[in-house]
Amino acid sequence: MRLRNVKGASEKIESCPYIVLNYLEYKGHYQELFSNDNPIHIEIGMGKGTFLIEMAKRNPNVNFIGIEKFDSVIVRAIEKIEKESLPNLRLIRADAEHIEEFFEKEIDTIYLNFSDPWPKKRHTHRRLTSSKFLKRYDSIFKNDKKIIMKTDNRHLFEFSVIELVEYGYHIEDLCLDIYSENLENNIPTEYETRFHALGFPIYRIEVRKEVEKK
Amino acid sequence: MRLRNVKGASEKIESCPYIVLNYLEYKGHYQELFSNDNPIHIEIGMGKGTFLIEMAKRNPNVNFIGIEKFDSVIVRAIEKIEKESLPNLRLIRADAEHIEEFFEKEIDTIYLNFSDPWPKKRHTHRRLTSSKFLKRYDSIFKNDKKIIMKTDNRHLFEFSVIELVEYGYHIEDLCLDIYSENLENNIPTEYETRFHALGFPIYRIEVRKEVEKK
Repeated sequence: MRLRNVKGASEKIESCPYIVLNYLEYKGHYQELFSNDNPIHIEIGMGKGTFLIEMAKRNPNVNFIGIEKFDSVIVRAIEKIEKESLPNLRLIRADAEHIEEFFEKEIDTIYLNFSDPWPKKRHTHRRLTSSKFLKRYDSIFKNDKKIIMKTDNRHLFEFSVIELVEYGYHIEDLCLDIYSENLENNIPTEYETRFHALGFPIYRIEVRKEVEKK
Repeated sequence: MRLRNVKGASEKIESCPYIVLNYLEYKGHYQELFSNDNPIHIEIGMGKGTFLIEMAKRNPNVNFIGIEKFDSVIVRAIEKIEKESLPNLRLIRADAEHIEEFFEKEIDTIYLNFSDPWPKKRHTHRRLTSSKFLKRYDSIFKNDKKIIMKTDNRHLFEFSVIELVEYGYHIEDLCLDIYSENLENNIPTEYETRFHALGFPIYRIEVRKEVEKK
């Protein structure tokens, strides 16, 4: 994504009621933030928020948290929701590399939409579906672990399918061209709309790993 | 595949030295047929044989057996090899539905190229990667079970990935568009060449299931 400097971005972020500034303090207590027991879904790399904002509107009984590291990007999401009332949505401005420090046994689903493909072999461990990250996610899930991923990047997708399966996830749904299917429930991201228009297939996988019974 | 009536097909088949007529009698003894200990690879639904014949030429230290149920199709393969000398190739004219009756602990690799997609839900069990077939393959493999599949049919491929993984196969290689990659080692089938030319991506997966240690 090309990053533009957005004037007054950090002020905007700090004064936005959707932003969780002291997010590390909520670790293990996110339900208090939402004042309910609804499941919590997160999107790592929420970008300008189109996907997550629409998800929050359509699913009032689910709590959503979007994580985005770039000020200039998250500020666009803030602009979209300033005038909305979405009590089931929160945003975190942070690098999710050590996401295991953010949450503890409280997440239901992780969305990974058009994540950075990190194409070089030596950067494999930076991909959000690498076993290194899958291990970090382990401690943030409440019960069953559920990940839903979309991307137009073929190599990232091929890598992710193998990595998820090797880590013990079961494939619940796999689609190698979502625009050839019924899209009723699909919420496109900004990227998705652009890359689909260029003729690239959009891949999607939904996986689950059942909680280990002791 | 459109099937044409080929005049004299059954005579041609019966007199062809590559054809194993009494194939059920070789169950468990296929190495005798080849007079060596080389690994045996089979292709279920070999069609007109382009793929398997070229594989046999390139890999003299592997034995190949092609199985095809239609006379009018296998006869085209025969025409291609009549004048060749390929001691490591044999053909079986049969329906492979009960392939567990053909072989016993002697196969190294199964190739499934552009298999019938059986698109209707009620025909799922007829797909060559359905758990019903995977169970039949279990008894024909010698050691590790290895399956290599190519198809242009997206639904069949999505189904197959899930089915293979659920059955315990590990993905060793996955490619969602083989013509975007280095094709040095790829041998296209007749179908493949045609459907690639029409702009369809060709999918490929290579899976392995290690032999259970007792």
